[in-house]
Amino acid sequence: MKLYGEDNPAPNPRRVRIFLAEKGLTLEQERVPLRERAHKASAFLEKNTLGQVPVLELDDGSYLSESVSICRYLEGLHPTPPLFGVSPKEQAVIDMWIRRIELQLMMPIAHIWRHTHPLTASLLTQFTDFGESNRAHVERAYRWLDTELADREFIAGDAYSMADIIAQTTADFGRFIGVSVPEDCAAVQAWLTRVTDRPSATA
Amino acid sequence: MKLYGEDNPAPNPRRVRIFLAEKGLTLEQERVPLRERAHKASAFLEKNTLGQVPVLELDDGSYLSESVSICRYLEGLHPTPPLFGVSPKEQAVIDMWIRRIELQLMMPIAHIWRHTHPLTASLLTQFTDFGESNRAHVERAYRWLDTELADREFIAGDAYSMADIIAQTTADFGRFIGVSVPEDCAAVQAWLTRVTDRPSATA
Repeated sequence: MKLYGEDNPAPNPRRVRIFLAEKGLTLEQERVPLRERAHKASAFLEKNTLGQVPVLELDDGSYLSESVSICRYLEGLHPTPPLFGVSPKEQAVIDMWIRRIELQLMMPIAHIWRHTHPLTASLLTQFTDFGESNRAHVERAYRWLDTELADREFIAGDAYSMADIIAQTTADFGRFIGVSVPEDCAAVQAWLTRVTDRPSATA
Repeated sequence: MKLYGEDNPAPNPRRVRIFLAEKGLTLEQERVPLRERAHKASAFLEKNTLGQVPVLELDDGSYLSESVSICRYLEGLHPTPPLFGVSPKEQAVIDMWIRRIELQLMMPIAHIWRHTHPLTASLLTQFTDFGESNRAHVERAYRWLDTELADREFIAGDAYSMADIIAQTTADFGRFIGVSVPEDCAAVQAWLTRVTDRPSATA
């Protein structure tokens, strides 16, 4: 197996890096220099027709993209420690929380990034008013998450899971673009400290 | 088990209906009248703090939301016929295609619905220019999907899967709001005919 584009600072490659660190796995890696648009070159488009990183090359020569799907595949090969749950209920609850964090928190943060940030202005047509409107969605999502986390340690329950990796990379990316967890969301702040204290956080 | 809100016309409840039809499963159901805002009432918010349908009540009294996660749970209990794959690779590829269809196709269609459609105008602040800009994304996504489907029967490979259910409910919802598959996307049109011919399509 070989992992392409794991070296990039965006949230999705980092999801895979943290997952690998939590599993204690190392994979052969190949850099994909995004600044040189290597992810849009034909050699890379053969690996992922969407031109996105990361991509995992499997031992049979086929390619897998989408960071969560890559981690799900690696979980199948290396089930311990489980990060996607074991029982059908655990697996479904973790899946639900991955989706909730992506839809409620990551999406509005991505809209702010794409539609208001100077670094993306030259890459797409920005709809600034729409982008700005997402700040209220992010705040509402953090306040909702704060009530959810009031009586548990981790996003999907009492055990650390892939849902924490999704939320952690989202929160850190949000902070990078100036959208932080509200000061008074004590449960979210405590959770963020908890996951940031794990050795995998430096991945 | 009991399924709440399965009776609604939106794409997400229909995903679960088609999944149940493909599995040959029936579940006890309870209506959630969205027009009466029953999904935002406190009795329902105890089942899903996000106030969204569908929700599955498990036999232990806990609740599960997010349509894909509900189907994933039911797959764990009723593995045959498999709709999320069996081997780690099959499972990861289907997961990748669920995510690709949601991110590349469902998201821009949802933006058009929310930000341009008269039926949603009273429910949220519409950013019409942003909404309209998503029509080009939908067309691009269909043209990309057309090349992907040129040499296979179904979205994630040679077997029908959950990814087809996601794509079918998305395409049908798009048509409902006036965003159809481009006429010249022959492979997508043939695929849509193929899934529409299945008995589950009437669910």
